[in-house]
Amino acid sequence: MPGSLSIDQLAAQVLRLAGGALAARIEGNGRRPVSGVATLEQAAADQLSFLANPRYRRSAAATGAGALVLSEADRAALFPAGSPSCVLIVCEAPYAWFAFAAQALAVPASPSVGTAAGAVVHPAARVDPSSAIGPLAVIDEGAVIGAAAQIGAGCYVGRQVRIGEGTRLHPGARIYDGCRIGARCILHAGCVIGADGFGFAPFQGQWVKIPQTGGVVIGDDVEVGAGTTIDRGAIGDTIIEEGVKIDNQVQIGHNCRIGAHSAIAGCVGIAGSTTVGRRCQLGGAAMIQGHITIADDSVISGATAITRDIRQAGFYTGIYPFMRNREWERNAVLLRHLDELRERIRRLEASVRAQPAESDR
Amino acid sequence: MPGSLSIDQLAAQVLRLAGGALAARIEGNGRRPVSGVATLEQAAADQLSFLANPRYRRSAAATGAGALVLSEADRAALFPAGSPSCVLIVCEAPYAWFAFAAQALAVPASPSVGTAAGAVVHPAARVDPSSAIGPLAVIDEGAVIGAAAQIGAGCYVGRQVRIGEGTRLHPGARIYDGCRIGARCILHAGCVIGADGFGFAPFQGQWVKIPQTGGVVIGDDVEVGAGTTIDRGAIGDTIIEEGVKIDNQVQIGHNCRIGAHSAIAGCVGIAGSTTVGRRCQLGGAAMIQGHITIADDSVISGATAITRDIRQAGFYTGIYPFMRNREWERNAVLLRHLDELRERIRRLEASVRAQPAESDR
Amino acid sequence: MPGSLSIDQLAAQVLRLAGGALAARIEGNGRRPVSGVATLEQAAADQLSFLANPRYRRSAAATGAGALVLSEADRAALFPAGSPSCVLIVCEAPYAWFAFAAQALAVPASPSVGTAAGAVVHPAARVDPSSAIGPLAVIDEGAVIGAAAQIGAGCYVGRQVRIGEGTRLHPGARIYDGCRIGARCILHAGCVIGADGFGFAPFQGQWVKIPQTGGVVIGDDVEVGAGTTIDRGAIGDTIIEEGVKIDNQVQIGHNCRIGAHSAIAGCVGIAGSTTVGRRCQLGGAAMIQGHITIADDSVISGATAITRDIRQAGFYTGIYPFMRNREWERNAVLLRHLDELRERIRRLEASVRAQPAESDR
Repeated sequence: MPGSLSIDQLAAQVLRLAGGALAARIEGNGRRPVSGVATLEQAAADQLSFLANPRYRRSAAATGAGALVLSEADRAALFPAGSPSCVLIVCEAPYAWFAFAAQALAVPASPSVGTAAGAVVHPAARVDPSSAIGPLAVIDEGAVIGAAAQIGAGCYVGRQVRIGEGTRLHPGARIYDGCRIGARCILHAGCVIGADGFGFAPFQGQWVKIPQTGGVVIGDDVEVGAGTTIDRGAIGDTIIEEGVKIDNQVQIGHNCRIGAHSAIAGCVGIAGSTTVGRRCQLGGAAMIQGHITIADDSVISGATAITRDIRQAGFYTGIYPFMRNREWERNAVLLRHLDELRERIRRLEASVRAQPAESDR
Repeated sequence: MPGSLSIDQLAAQVLRLAGGALAARIEGNGRRPVSGVATLEQAAADQLSFLANPRYRRSAAATGAGALVLSEADRAALFPAGSPSCVLIVCEAPYAWFAFAAQALAVPASPSVGTAAGAVVHPAARVDPSSAIGPLAVIDEGAVIGAAAQIGAGCYVGRQVRIGEGTRLHPGARIYDGCRIGARCILHAGCVIGADGFGFAPFQGQWVKIPQTGGVVIGDDVEVGAGTTIDRGAIGDTIIEEGVKIDNQVQIGHNCRIGAHSAIAGCVGIAGSTTVGRRCQLGGAAMIQGHITIADDSVISGATAITRDIRQAGFYTGIYPFMRNREWERNAVLLRHLDELRERIRRLEASVRAQPAESDR
Repeated sequence: MPGSLSIDQLAAQVLRLAGGALAARIEGNGRRPVSGVATLEQAAADQLSFLANPRYRRSAAATGAGALVLSEADRAALFPAGSPSCVLIVCEAPYAWFAFAAQALAVPASPSVGTAAGAVVHPAARVDPSSAIGPLAVIDEGAVIGAAAQIGAGCYVGRQVRIGEGTRLHPGARIYDGCRIGARCILHAGCVIGADGFGFAPFQGQWVKIPQTGGVVIGDDVEVGAGTTIDRGAIGDTIIEEGVKIDNQVQIGHNCRIGAHSAIAGCVGIAGSTTVGRRCQLGGAAMIQGHITIADDSVISGATAITRDIRQAGFYTGIYPFMRNREWERNAVLLRHLDELRERIRRLEASVRAQPAESDR
């Protein structure tokens, strides 16, 4: 069950969670209780909602929420005289304020500290007594599980793996030998950290496996989505820096480095030895070639294939526009022969340039 | 071992499975036994095969099958005087007839009802006595497992999860807390239902996690492929309506709604808050943007990126045609400069329009 | 801990691993010990590095490695008088030599033979006494585990599955009933072999499931990446021939056949009933349509959609080039209307052809 806080209490908690950096002005009754969050359309009198995009002003004006976080500009536009029905929480970053408030209101299921039935913990593993090991999890030889860490049901934590303080592995996450996971990370079900990179040398028409002797190092405050795979390095480590957020079914090849606070949406693939800068955003199903470098603060549209270095921050796109299949069929044929179209233009240009001379004759 | 039925018995079972809606005319000996299904090329005298596409008429004419399902038109074209070697089963929907017949002939491995060795069932879970819990599965607090459900080895069923009657989870499927799965569903190995949606608010160059407080609700008769992930909603639920069929490694983001009886092929990604209509078909590796709506009965080609609403049913495509790499290199350069080609055409048009006047002089 | 070998010993082992086919000339002190491999930049005096691409000659010239594998040509260009600091290992295929050497130097963690705590082995399974069954693995009825095979923690090996000699399943790999895996294979965590193919017949606006009665047959020396899924055949088997290497999160549909020694990079999807030839290379995130055939020795660029047969070996590409978003927006509009551009060119050509006549008047 979610907790219930007064708006004043909530504001105090948000301020604390945001490191003192996110003050808000409360307009209305700060003692009104809030017990959860909801969308503008569905919020009830004991719920908090938010307006972060002016497109939704109409919904915000009609919201039944008991409390509404919004910017000064939206407040001025919508409620120049305040709101009769809901408490306004006016601040500079309403979406972030809302996120912190939702965290404060969420009461996570309290894990039962200790080792659950059927878990298999190697005698040479070190498990902090404040951590929780779920049913049927396996903690292998030499692994170290930090304070307050939560290892879900059926997880596998390999030899010599280190799991930082407060990190949570959801059921069925698997970490190969020797990988290191930072503090306060969240790893979702079915993710695989540290499988072998895809490294083979061709020899006489066959492939010779190159042992993948590096590991994976994941910084603090990283989230890894369900079914995501991050391969160990061939020589040296694959590195995910602090604060990186990775969605589901992302594949990160061996020896990649993902810069701090980058966000990678679902189904992205990043081939080996590529460096993604800090604070980058990769849209869903973007495909990033190996052995390239992407500048800090680059934004890549979804479904875009990046095939060479991006040296300058910017917003990059490469999606082939979809259309009705019949039109696509016409266009696709032309696309295959763009060079012929250009040749026809060239010949036309030559003719047209030639003609004035002719008509002068 | 597959069962063996006479063709008449099979036809009766198909009629029953199809709810009385798929009658067939048997031409030949209805008492001939059939013990399994096979391709036109490989079928033997005790096997059933089918012809659903006129392109394979030649194979059908030469088939060694003991029984052949086909349409009236194919029957008229191939066997105007009946077949001497095989029993003809003539009906309106031969592929569906074949599918029902194959179901009737398939004898599934009978699950050993009850809870297998090493499974961990929370005392506060409710497990129907007619269900089967596989070895080393975990059924967490408050979960409800319906009649005749089968939970495979190593599955995880979270707190308060509901699994409908007759639903089957293959080994290693994982359902997070609070999700609800309908009746007669099939969830394949390694799928993950209810992991956190990818929701973060930017704040001071970092990402603030937005707790994902919704769930996932899956209707009756849904199939979910191996390695597929369906995220829980941020606020409110992610919804998969009845009869939806989802292939392997599909990613469905938070707060999506997938309309009844839609089919989603492998490797499709659907970003958050998108609504896919009823009876849609999404081809393999199609990529669907977030916050859009796709009309009922839309068909999307594989490998197509859908980046805005589709308001009208139709067949949509956006695949960049492949070619030999050398030609591609020439074309790709031109593609980057299509606007220059257009500019050259504009200038040509201006010149050509100007010239007649000049030649008048 | 990695082993330590003299360079002469290492060369002898490489020769043995390569079946006698990869001789090298040692220039310098063959008794120098080598204990591991490293990159050209990071290698120390007891490490081996390699130069396989002339682009890295500068790094090779400056390497601190104790031993360097390289080609005759690179040796002549870089060290015409030999190297004062490192032993040169000159051979025809330096990358393959390096791969074998790395294998020789890698000392894999010795598995504890036998069945670990908490594993569930069906009494009717046959487990070779030299194999290792990890903690909480499940070996189901009738399965056969070959000599020296290693089944990781939490794996599931279904009924009647056969696992060849020396094959390794990493934690959480899952094999459905009846599939056959060859010798010396490596299956990574979270892969799923033998889930149902995606086969449904449309009937009255719904989908009728077609039972998938085939299996999956995987040859010897195959590697399957983390999270990869290979579906069982509808009728007849899905076949992965010997020596195929498959990266992470690859999806292979029912009844595909992948020819021997092909390599498939991460995130590739191959729809059902497609045949990929021998020694093909499919780049990351390539998408291959169903029911097609790709010739032996074809090379497909990453992120390319293959939509029809490839009848001739070659290098094929279809990636839409990315650009700054603003330019993309201009180009994408033009792309949708390529046929209009062509029409304008046609009209221009007609005008230009017409004009000389006019100016003759």
